[in-house]
Amino acid sequence: MTVAASADVNLVVCGLVYTRDKENSVIEDGAVAIAGDMIVEVGSREQVLGRYPRAQAIIEEHGLIMPGLVNTHTHAAMACFRGLADDLPLMTWLQHYIFPIEANLTAEIVYHSSLLSMAEMIKSGTTSFCDMYLFAKEVARATSDSGMRGWLGEVLYDFDSPNYGGLESGFNYVEEMFAQYEKHPLVTITVDPHSVYTCSPALLQRLKEVAERRNAPYVIHLSETKDEVAGCLKLHGNTPVKHLQALGLLDEQVIAAHGVVLTEEEIELLSVCRVKVAHCPESNMKLASGVAPIPQLLAAGVTVGLGTDGCASNNDVDMFGEMDTAAKLHKVNTLDPTVMSAETTLGLATRGGAELLGAEGEIGSIEPGKKADIIVLDLNQPHLTPMYHIPSHLVYAARGADVIHSIINGRLVMRNRRLLTIDEAAILATMNEIGRDIRKKLGKD
Amino acid sequence: MTVAASADVNLVVCGLVYTRDKENSVIEDGAVAIAGDMIVEVGSREQVLGRYPRAQAIIEEHGLIMPGLVNTHTHAAMACFRGLADDLPLMTWLQHYIFPIEANLTAEIVYHSSLLSMAEMIKSGTTSFCDMYLFAKEVARATSDSGMRGWLGEVLYDFDSPNYGGLESGFNYVEEMFAQYEKHPLVTITVDPHSVYTCSPALLQRLKEVAERRNAPYVIHLSETKDEVAGCLKLHGNTPVKHLQALGLLDEQVIAAHGVVLTEEEIELLSVCRVKVAHCPESNMKLASGVAPIPQLLAAGVTVGLGTDGCASNNDVDMFGEMDTAAKLHKVNTLDPTVMSAETTLGLATRGGAELLGAEGEIGSIEPGKKADIIVLDLNQPHLTPMYHIPSHLVYAARGADVIHSIINGRLVMRNRRLLTIDEAAILATMNEIGRDIRKKLGKD
Repeated sequence: MTVAASADVNLVVCGLVYTRDKENSVIEDGAVAIAGDMIVEVGSREQVLGRYPRAQAIIEEHGLIMPGLVNTHTHAAMACFRGLADDLPLMTWLQHYIFPIEANLTAEIVYHSSLLSMAEMIKSGTTSFCDMYLFAKEVARATSDSGMRGWLGEVLYDFDSPNYGGLESGFNYVEEMFAQYEKHPLVTITVDPHSVYTCSPALLQRLKEVAERRNAPYVIHLSETKDEVAGCLKLHGNTPVKHLQALGLLDEQVIAAHGVVLTEEEIELLSVCRVKVAHCPESNMKLASGVAPIPQLLAAGVTVGLGTDGCASNNDVDMFGEMDTAAKLHKVNTLDPTVMSAETTLGLATRGGAELLGAEGEIGSIEPGKKADIIVLDLNQPHLTPMYHIPSHLVYAARGADVIHSIINGRLVMRNRRLLTIDEAAILATMNEIGRDIRKKLGKD
Repeated sequence: MTVAASADVNLVVCGLVYTRDKENSVIEDGAVAIAGDMIVEVGSREQVLGRYPRAQAIIEEHGLIMPGLVNTHTHAAMACFRGLADDLPLMTWLQHYIFPIEANLTAEIVYHSSLLSMAEMIKSGTTSFCDMYLFAKEVARATSDSGMRGWLGEVLYDFDSPNYGGLESGFNYVEEMFAQYEKHPLVTITVDPHSVYTCSPALLQRLKEVAERRNAPYVIHLSETKDEVAGCLKLHGNTPVKHLQALGLLDEQVIAAHGVVLTEEEIELLSVCRVKVAHCPESNMKLASGVAPIPQLLAAGVTVGLGTDGCASNNDVDMFGEMDTAAKLHKVNTLDPTVMSAETTLGLATRGGAELLGAEGEIGSIEPGKKADIIVLDLNQPHLTPMYHIPSHLVYAARGADVIHSIINGRLVMRNRRLLTIDEAAILATMNEIGRDIRKKLGKD
């Protein structure tokens, strides 16, 4: 497996290579050669190391080399709200905690909180994510600084935003982001209507026009709760999915976050319209929203990715934990231990996420010609020994903390669990200050 | 808070002390003084350090000091089966994988596999566990060697055992264990009928006599699956719980593992009879058994502990992950985000577990006079910064890998994530060999 094997190879990573390519190739004592941002060769250690003797070599006898995980739905900046309030009815949580604080958000808070979340994402094996939030330029700045690969957008809704104010400014803000990041190697801008319950039909349609003009993903929270469905039925005489369909918005650009409350007919509709679904099981559990019909969506051929949602409703962004929960939740929900196998679940977090983002040619597996988004896990640990079946260990036993190295777009962003693109001590200190301020504002001190 | 403050204090641990005592006291910049196996003082760092200047001091500026977690149901030795087979119907899993391998188990495999699981338990913050398995003398030997605190017993059933052979030898084996560990500081022997579907009424009753004579816990898998309930109804005309009641066995000695399929009447019965329930949410999810009615059991006043079950059906023994899953599972199952709060869930894994084991005077909180079973977490990490509410972080964000030090019965068993009682490299090497043998026996190579 080689493309353009070149003298430009600057990094070779050696260990057990778990490619997640179409054949699910596994290479014991293997190696991955990286030139610039790209994987150029995957093969035996001896062969690859021999070919590129001058490249920097990372050799892990007990390392498992795999594609970085793809988090298809998060709000990174909500890291500053983690644990601020839990175990509350959704409306109490939103109205007494999240909304009052979000009303006072600043660009600086969003930048630092996003960077904190990216530190956590890198340390737990995520290399790509899809983010929706306020002050999205700051999320983009943090993404660029962290070296992560991000699809991200400014969230829009009918009411004024603490960031851009009125809607016209919001549209300008979005256009500025598209212009600013048009050629960025890591940041892709998305168009993000918040939901059908916060966006008028006119807003939903106008944003779709932007998405079409920009050829960008159209990311929306969809059918997350029974209340959302009931409200939409009352207001528009349609479920959220049918409401989007009636507005002519349901197509392959749509990334629907959650998709918890869906009828069989709607599942079929999502499939026919090639809508993608970002599944966030832990958030749906913690907020008691329900269980998304993922086995049925997959059976219908819908592209499904896995997401953590914001860590205020999770409360982490560890995709290894999310895989574990996803596989188990659907088994108990269907009372069938054979659904959502480790293999299927790992697929959601790798190739499924890549497909959802329209990036299956770029990321999601270790193959020559793809971007070098690679993580290395340390298998030499009690909870991973012995190993009979790789996907089982990755889904049911491994955790974020098992990731020791991370490479994104060919750049080493973590080595031996030390972040190389983020000053971890500085961001922790800043976040402790931000946390003190938030606590004060809520009168919790 | 002081008892018998003495010149014998040999260890002082300093950091944020989260006692989990009745008042839920938190001491910032606090310290815990340990003399022999006991906590003798809990107070401010300055005060405690000043009083015991010659004691070894572990000072963690960013450390959270809390009681070690209590895993109330596991089969430690099943660590050698982790990931051997997953995502299968229960009977396929048992008959094609677990039973054939268990038929060839040896004392050596059980000893090493148990020790491996204990390495994982210590590294993920568990200090006490309740174990049921074959070759239980080997589990006891591993417990003693690892320095963990274990309640453990030899599992008995109607058919011959790969360990003791026929039942009479089984009863002798159990008596030998009681004699051998009568005065052991860490090992407590339990009486372990496997279940109502593998034990005749006569066996259940005879084992209860042993438990009464020895004043020992009577540990049994109970109402784990619908099939178990249906089978018991067919064979005995009663549900498993009512079957035990009819046999006169339902009392405060009983530790019922699982308790998934329970009627309201049975919940009341368990409460009245003071039966304890070991809740294993991840195993129940993975095997698609169902969701135990834990909020109802707690409302009825039943003592509930948390357990991982064997890691072949989990696939880990990380109690931090188990807490997270427990809290979320019951929220989504009841569609109520207020049930199983972080506070309640953490209670199950600490004081609840201690009460289940009849050891609430010894373990489960950090208080003078209790045994020194203490863990220290490193809070200085992206996923734990900032911190607004300690139980929220411990349940929803922390993971086993955040535990850096562990003290059991006053003995430092892990320091800076290095195990001090177990040769980790040696056990990993041994387990890789055992794994190769198991794979061969199953013809998977």
